[in-house]
Amino acid sequence: MIFHHKIRTRYAETGQDGIIHHSAYIVYLEEARLEYLKILGCDIKDLEQKKIYCPVVDLSLKYVTPLLLFDDINIEVGVEKVSKVRFSFKYTILKGKTLVAKGAISHCFTNEKLKPIGIPEKIKNYLLDNIGE
Amino acid sequence: MIFHHKIRTRYAETGQDGIIHHSAYIVYLEEARLEYLKILGCDIKDLEQKKIYCPVVDLSLKYVTPLLLFDDINIEVGVEKVSKVRFSFKYTILKGKTLVAKGAISHCFTNEKLKPIGIPEKIKNYLLDNIGE
Amino acid sequence: MIFHHKIRTRYAETGQDGIIHHSAYIVYLEEARLEYLKILGCDIKDLEQKKIYCPVVDLSLKYVTPLLLFDDINIEVGVEKVSKVRFSFKYTILKGKTLVAKGAISHCFTNEKLKPIGIPEKIKNYLLDNIGE
Amino acid sequence: MIFHHKIRTRYAETGQDGIIHHSAYIVYLEEARLEYLKILGCDIKDLEQKKIYCPVVDLSLKYVTPLLLFDDINIEVGVEKVSKVRFSFKYTILKGKTLVAKGAISHCFTNEKLKPIGIPEKIKNYLLDNIGE
Repeated sequence: MIFHHKIRTRYAETGQDGIIHHSAYIVYLEEARLEYLKILGCDIKDLEQKKIYCPVVDLSLKYVTPLLLFDDINIEVGVEKVSKVRFSFKYTILKGKTLVAKGAISHCFTNEKLKPIGIPEKIKNYLLDNIGE
Repeated sequence: MIFHHKIRTRYAETGQDGIIHHSAYIVYLEEARLEYLKILGCDIKDLEQKKIYCPVVDLSLKYVTPLLLFDDINIEVGVEKVSKVRFSFKYTILKGKTLVAKGAISHCFTNEKLKPIGIPEKIKNYLLDNIGE
Repeated sequence: MIFHHKIRTRYAETGQDGIIHHSAYIVYLEEARLEYLKILGCDIKDLEQKKIYCPVVDLSLKYVTPLLLFDDINIEVGVEKVSKVRFSFKYTILKGKTLVAKGAISHCFTNEKLKPIGIPEKIKNYLLDNIGE
Repeated sequence: MIFHHKIRTRYAETGQDGIIHHSAYIVYLEEARLEYLKILGCDIKDLEQKKIYCPVVDLSLKYVTPLLLFDDINIEVGVEKVSKVRFSFKYTILKGKTLVAKGAISHCFTNEKLKPIGIPEKIKNYLLDNIGE
């Protein structure tokens, strides 16, 4: 399943070159990912209340077409890979039919002391059920 | 030549998981890169006044050790590759001797209409003179 | 006329104290203001293409109830005051019926050299037409 | 006692109007305040480990002179007022001898459930010892 999430770019995210700052994309992808995870039955808010955290371990992103102020973008998110301790989402950012950016982000789960733990079984199953297109 | 740049993490960059948000690293790397470019004789401020821009086209980053509030980090920046239209920097973020993150970011140059142009000759030479260790 | 604008808080806006960082509210208010100005016939994007800018000159905000991750807020924006060279908006942020924050932000207009200019006549009229409740 | 703290503005903090975004100032003031509090013997990191938090309750700021990329600013911080449950700092941002901004921010202390508590006695004394110039 591919999840779709819409975002409008903000003024505070522009830079003096007139385009949206490349770091803002990372925040957009996170917003899309967390909304998708909620739908998969994995609300980061509940998880963190149980002292389980889900940091980024790897991130790669190609910037194809610059974004401007007030651009309405559509983010496509899908589960890419799932292993014992890691999983990754792949992302496509589109503005209409124009490809804006493409990338992938990997995560692990950790306990309160930031030590990696295995992917909780329930979440692993949710992810595996939704891998690929 | 490897350029070294020091940054202290900010409260506003922490997240509710207690660690520095992964998007903040992108801002740290940019700060280090722009300071390095200044020393190489390529001040982004001068460049942009001439309507030449230098957007990110590719970014990859591995997050190895989480950063906490008030961490003093050292960012190592070096020129990785230089072609006719693109160049990339490689980065290492260290906290003391601990590896925090490692990655690379590629850029091109564009005119005011965001159309790619070749790397200005002078800058290309600065970059080539400093490639590798 | 009071304009209403909805925003959901983002993970990247949380801090290690578990609440939304106070600087994020400033970005929320800007998003609401710029959407309202668009509706009033004053799109900041068009304005800036004409080299007219609209910086903040004064800002005050009371933080009443903390915001948490994924909170859906409603921002109420209204024109507060309009003079020859300045105007201000007043803001209320609500989460359901709970008051989150209350404040006002003043602006002037400047030319490309950041020198203050009078409020453009057309915009002044839009603002005056919508002053108060 | 007036505390002085230096910051250089970052590219990511610029906006498409070519000046530093007004929300960045809030982050600068926080950085200065937390460094000052450390020197006063009140490290926010230690405090938060004891589940004591220090949110903003009131903020006002006048923006006098715009900031540009790579500007080196000096932030002056001083204790303004101290009551049983609240305290405030006053701030001046300077660029050389030019006044950039001037304001004040009030805080309270809360427990883990975000309920206000009195100012811890030791911190109250630190603040009172340093009130005014």
